[in-house]
Amino acid sequence: MITAGIVGAAGYAGGELLRLLAGHRHVELVQVTSREFAGAAVTRHFPNLRGKLDIDFGLPDEDALGACDVVFFATPHAVAMRSAARVLAGGARVIDLSADFRIRDIACWEQWYGVVHESPELVAGAVYGLPEVNRKRIREARLIAVPGCYPTAIQLALLPLLENRLVDESRLIADAKSGVSGAGRKAAAEYLLCETAESISAYALAGHRHHPEIVQGLEQAAGGRPVRLTFVPHLTPMIRGILATCYAPVRDPGGCDAESLRSVFVRRYADEPFVQVLEAGELPATRDVRGSNVCEISVHYAEKSSMAIVLAAEDNLVKGAAGQAVQCMNIMFGQEESEGLAGAALLP
Amino acid sequence: MITAGIVGAAGYAGGELLRLLAGHRHVELVQVTSREFAGAAVTRHFPNLRGKLDIDFGLPDEDALGACDVVFFATPHAVAMRSAARVLAGGARVIDLSADFRIRDIACWEQWYGVVHESPELVAGAVYGLPEVNRKRIREARLIAVPGCYPTAIQLALLPLLENRLVDESRLIADAKSGVSGAGRKAAAEYLLCETAESISAYALAGHRHHPEIVQGLEQAAGGRPVRLTFVPHLTPMIRGILATCYAPVRDPGGCDAESLRSVFVRRYADEPFVQVLEAGELPATRDVRGSNVCEISVHYAEKSSMAIVLAAEDNLVKGAAGQAVQCMNIMFGQEESEGLAGAALLP
Amino acid sequence: MITAGIVGAAGYAGGELLRLLAGHRHVELVQVTSREFAGAAVTRHFPNLRGKLDIDFGLPDEDALGACDVVFFATPHAVAMRSAARVLAGGARVIDLSADFRIRDIACWEQWYGVVHESPELVAGAVYGLPEVNRKRIREARLIAVPGCYPTAIQLALLPLLENRLVDESRLIADAKSGVSGAGRKAAAEYLLCETAESISAYALAGHRHHPEIVQGLEQAAGGRPVRLTFVPHLTPMIRGILATCYAPVRDPGGCDAESLRSVFVRRYADEPFVQVLEAGELPATRDVRGSNVCEISVHYAEKSSMAIVLAAEDNLVKGAAGQAVQCMNIMFGQEESEGLAGAALLP
Amino acid sequence: MITAGIVGAAGYAGGELLRLLAGHRHVELVQVTSREFAGAAVTRHFPNLRGKLDIDFGLPDEDALGACDVVFFATPHAVAMRSAARVLAGGARVIDLSADFRIRDIACWEQWYGVVHESPELVAGAVYGLPEVNRKRIREARLIAVPGCYPTAIQLALLPLLENRLVDESRLIADAKSGVSGAGRKAAAEYLLCETAESISAYALAGHRHHPEIVQGLEQAAGGRPVRLTFVPHLTPMIRGILATCYAPVRDPGGCDAESLRSVFVRRYADEPFVQVLEAGELPATRDVRGSNVCEISVHYAEKSSMAIVLAAEDNLVKGAAGQAVQCMNIMFGQEESEGLAGAALLP
Repeated sequence: MITAGIVGAAGYAGGELLRLLAGHRHVELVQVTSREFAGAAVTRHFPNLRGKLDIDFGLPDEDALGACDVVFFATPHAVAMRSAARVLAGGARVIDLSADFRIRDIACWEQWYGVVHESPELVAGAVYGLPEVNRKRIREARLIAVPGCYPTAIQLALLPLLENRLVDESRLIADAKSGVSGAGRKAAAEYLLCETAESISAYALAGHRHHPEIVQGLEQAAGGRPVRLTFVPHLTPMIRGILATCYAPVRDPGGCDAESLRSVFVRRYADEPFVQVLEAGELPATRDVRGSNVCEISVHYAEKSSMAIVLAAEDNLVKGAAGQAVQCMNIMFGQEESEGLAGAALLP
Repeated sequence: MITAGIVGAAGYAGGELLRLLAGHRHVELVQVTSREFAGAAVTRHFPNLRGKLDIDFGLPDEDALGACDVVFFATPHAVAMRSAARVLAGGARVIDLSADFRIRDIACWEQWYGVVHESPELVAGAVYGLPEVNRKRIREARLIAVPGCYPTAIQLALLPLLENRLVDESRLIADAKSGVSGAGRKAAAEYLLCETAESISAYALAGHRHHPEIVQGLEQAAGGRPVRLTFVPHLTPMIRGILATCYAPVRDPGGCDAESLRSVFVRRYADEPFVQVLEAGELPATRDVRGSNVCEISVHYAEKSSMAIVLAAEDNLVKGAAGQAVQCMNIMFGQEESEGLAGAALLP
Repeated sequence: MITAGIVGAAGYAGGELLRLLAGHRHVELVQVTSREFAGAAVTRHFPNLRGKLDIDFGLPDEDALGACDVVFFATPHAVAMRSAARVLAGGARVIDLSADFRIRDIACWEQWYGVVHESPELVAGAVYGLPEVNRKRIREARLIAVPGCYPTAIQLALLPLLENRLVDESRLIADAKSGVSGAGRKAAAEYLLCETAESISAYALAGHRHHPEIVQGLEQAAGGRPVRLTFVPHLTPMIRGILATCYAPVRDPGGCDAESLRSVFVRRYADEPFVQVLEAGELPATRDVRGSNVCEISVHYAEKSSMAIVLAAEDNLVKGAAGQAVQCMNIMFGQEESEGLAGAALLP
Repeated sequence: MITAGIVGAAGYAGGELLRLLAGHRHVELVQVTSREFAGAAVTRHFPNLRGKLDIDFGLPDEDALGACDVVFFATPHAVAMRSAARVLAGGARVIDLSADFRIRDIACWEQWYGVVHESPELVAGAVYGLPEVNRKRIREARLIAVPGCYPTAIQLALLPLLENRLVDESRLIADAKSGVSGAGRKAAAEYLLCETAESISAYALAGHRHHPEIVQGLEQAAGGRPVRLTFVPHLTPMIRGILATCYAPVRDPGGCDAESLRSVFVRRYADEPFVQVLEAGELPATRDVRGSNVCEISVHYAEKSSMAIVLAAEDNLVKGAAGQAVQCMNIMFGQEESEGLAGAALLP
């Protein structure tokens, strides 16, 4: 059994980790922490786990965490950077779902997150936990930076185009729609049902923290060529799910059509257990992946405007957070990659 | 023009007052207060009023409020009881949407609300603002206690049965379903969209603050006979609306049928502008009254169990709060009772 | 491997059977039928099963079905009654999710369902598939009549009270709230999102087909004493879930309190894998069981009105339909009862 | 009083016309037709109008319609084209909410709508009912083609940029999100609550009927220069509302910033009663305009990618259909333009 700890387990990503790991045949949860709810049974905050997980939230204790085989951080930013070194020193491998180790450019990170990075030395060694890009490096990693929810969907949608130099990387657009769980479980009037139901709106027009992370990944896929991405996130009246609608002008419209674009994606993701490239004519919907680790992708071509349009749908809490973290864990510990992640989406 | 003030205007009931009064031809809003948002434009919190109401939130000032013709309190409990006396002394009439003056039994009020009542002397003179019961007294009142949202629906559903001694008043049940706006606009994790959407649950099984208020009204309708009411409120995944499903065992099943019960309601509410007794076969839905001041009522009879079943649907923020307050104001100031309240519900 | 067929697999209960059986380690789906969609891939209608189930809808063929180990009917009423005999004759065991074999009184069934029963001779031998009542008989059964969604929740909520003669069985009330999936996947304007979202309403006040089924079960629990039940179903703006709020007047208020009532339920369901009696102070919500086979129950006592109030929450498509059917199958085939049903609810 | 008729009044746009016109002080509804529901009271299908509108659906009768002052067609395409001539001949002015007279290129219309146009001679004389563009011509018009819901939002978002040649009109993108009411009130399984709630998806990637209508308007604004627009509509889990997120590359990035772009919009719409250009830092949400005729617009500039981003939010049934039609009627009949349209949006 892999002994596992979760730091910050009372939020939505933490709860999803609990759900997935409680159902994982080879994992034993031994440390589950929440500063706010320490002492309470986990099932008090996650009644869906009644009868499935009998453990209380504790206070984070880096020594106890370090004794685990693996520790997940499902904390807000600037928590993992303070604890990871000690937990790693204890021998545990660390999978961080926060942003702390995702961005290689420390100054850029500090600018977006507004704090001084306290473990810059760990960043270089951290592996960005996108299995579709870094599977081999994940296998050996001690510290994983799990991608954000928007970055996962948008990178999976654009990587094949950039890797194959098919589009003008200076004119990319990602119009992304997220369910409200992306905002977390904290008390905030703006995410009340009465403020968010029956309405859609854009936000972060002045810039979103996920933007540099996305560009970093896209530029790597583009062989280092600079990428310009216009990214507009939207708050959508639903609990879970991200749909990214990505627009990329095709470099060579002459030889381009929808099927040739689609075949690039089919080849790129042929062996990926959690990327589903849809048939021509099929369109993704976030309901198709609710609760599952699958990212659905469909590829289109608007001939008149020479525009590739790629749609990617994922569950922001699964492939966009906890599921991807478990996928990384499976790779790191030599498990079947889909272990604990095989459940079908809940539809309807 | 009637000059009006609103204390505590940044919540949902306050916002609904703003919406209704901004569209009222004979009202001018001159004081709109919010301790939390003082200094901000009202339209910052209620963008639906852009171009319709150009005023900022101020701090509550009892002298300025007293100079209004009418002042609405849309505050949490225990605020109006501290300010109403001074506002009344200034000459304004007061319409309180909170619970402070609803319950005649001060000890009972103090027990449920957990504070000492600071203006017990005002309670006896306050008029309970249910026009269907107290229209004449409302006309002369200086201080109105607007009924709560559950009490309005449940009383309108049961009054005709009790007034006519048709049912066993010791065995009443009200199973009520409320939209989430009933919980207010405050930051609270339990009312996030992700906590309340796609789920229904009961709450306050151990007792709800509206219970004594409802019983007080029902006992008055029953000519003073004691009433026993089992009341279970439910949180329903929608923004607005209350549906109360009320069960009352008929005293004399021999002569009873659905149509005779229904005709009692038709007569009782024949002249009421905001109570709509539905035809046989019609059923109310909260969507029918979304945004309107109408309470829809339908009356049924389950013959095998000799049970009258009365359904009442209202918009909790309108007939259950702000609309009823405006209706009272219209009565107090000699306006057409439906002035500013004539808009049809928004459907779909 | 158990070879299984599903007749009428394109609806919501059918889709849920597909989801659960696709994830069941000891079941192989060999026949999946839909008259409407014959020839189409199952994943066209259930994209959540892409990569998990590679089979097309076929036309129902009773010989092929009879060759299965087990056949599920997820059809509207009056379909199974025409096919079950031949399928049984072929050797398959039959689990019917429709109403065809639930009601022992054929005349009563024919009255409610408006058709002549074509296999009345099968009804007597059919076992009502509520494991909490009939586990032993299910084990030996050839033909199972899976309870309806409302009947499951309401019976589980009331059985312990009736079996122990704790309440007046002539004055029971079940106020039940169902998600819209209970209405099925058929094209009907009244269940459009725009007709059902943001609204709650009651329906079937004149009588619901599940009423006689519920009473039949309750009377059996009451040792044959007649039961009078007032049952009002409500359409709730959510996809899945039923919450039943049940009211039962306690026979002997003297010795009654909430904890003693609760302990009756704890004992009654102590060994049940899918009934969760909540702790005092906990309240069920349909979100806690979304996608899972658990029925959550909490027990309350309103002392002033001597009323037991029992709340039961289930997923109408799982414990209220497909999950219960799979639970029955597991019992019939000597499987672990929770095989394929162990997944936690999806929360949020 | 203006006597008015509505053909096809039982759908969502028709119902919204009924709601608006029932509250219009100078309109009397004298003909309200629905082939499907002829003979039924209008309030049977629109219970929100109980007590506000006492009229039955009739069968369409072109002579009776022609005797009205104004007739609205809220029908599917290809209905108005068959009746408008006779209704016009009777003396009524016609306001068509369908697509029949919107597109000047008859061949293009026939290609997209798949039928032969039966009144091509009326198209040239029809005035496109976008008051922000055609107010003067609307005043004199006998036949108005009210813009579609997507075209209204997208044109209002892009017109000022094109009229001032600020952007590259060959590289425009409109990513639009619509509530489900855009699909109408017809029985269709794909728009059931269970199919559309809790999910977002794109559709019509191969081309949407509103595309040529939008381009026709944009090209006119661009002084006849050809426009290339990539348009992707999305189905959003809410009843009402459209949010259009429009991307337009700025021609001259040197002198461009957000404020200068915004000021272009402020000037362009300074006298428009129903276009609200938001302050810098404000963002539109469809909830802000639910039930109102306002279109909210905010203007942004992504400097790194030299991209103007314009967001427009409207209620698809009001400014996107019935409200705009009433606005046109007010202009045509010399009424105050906001008569009957002054109500604030319902928030929350």
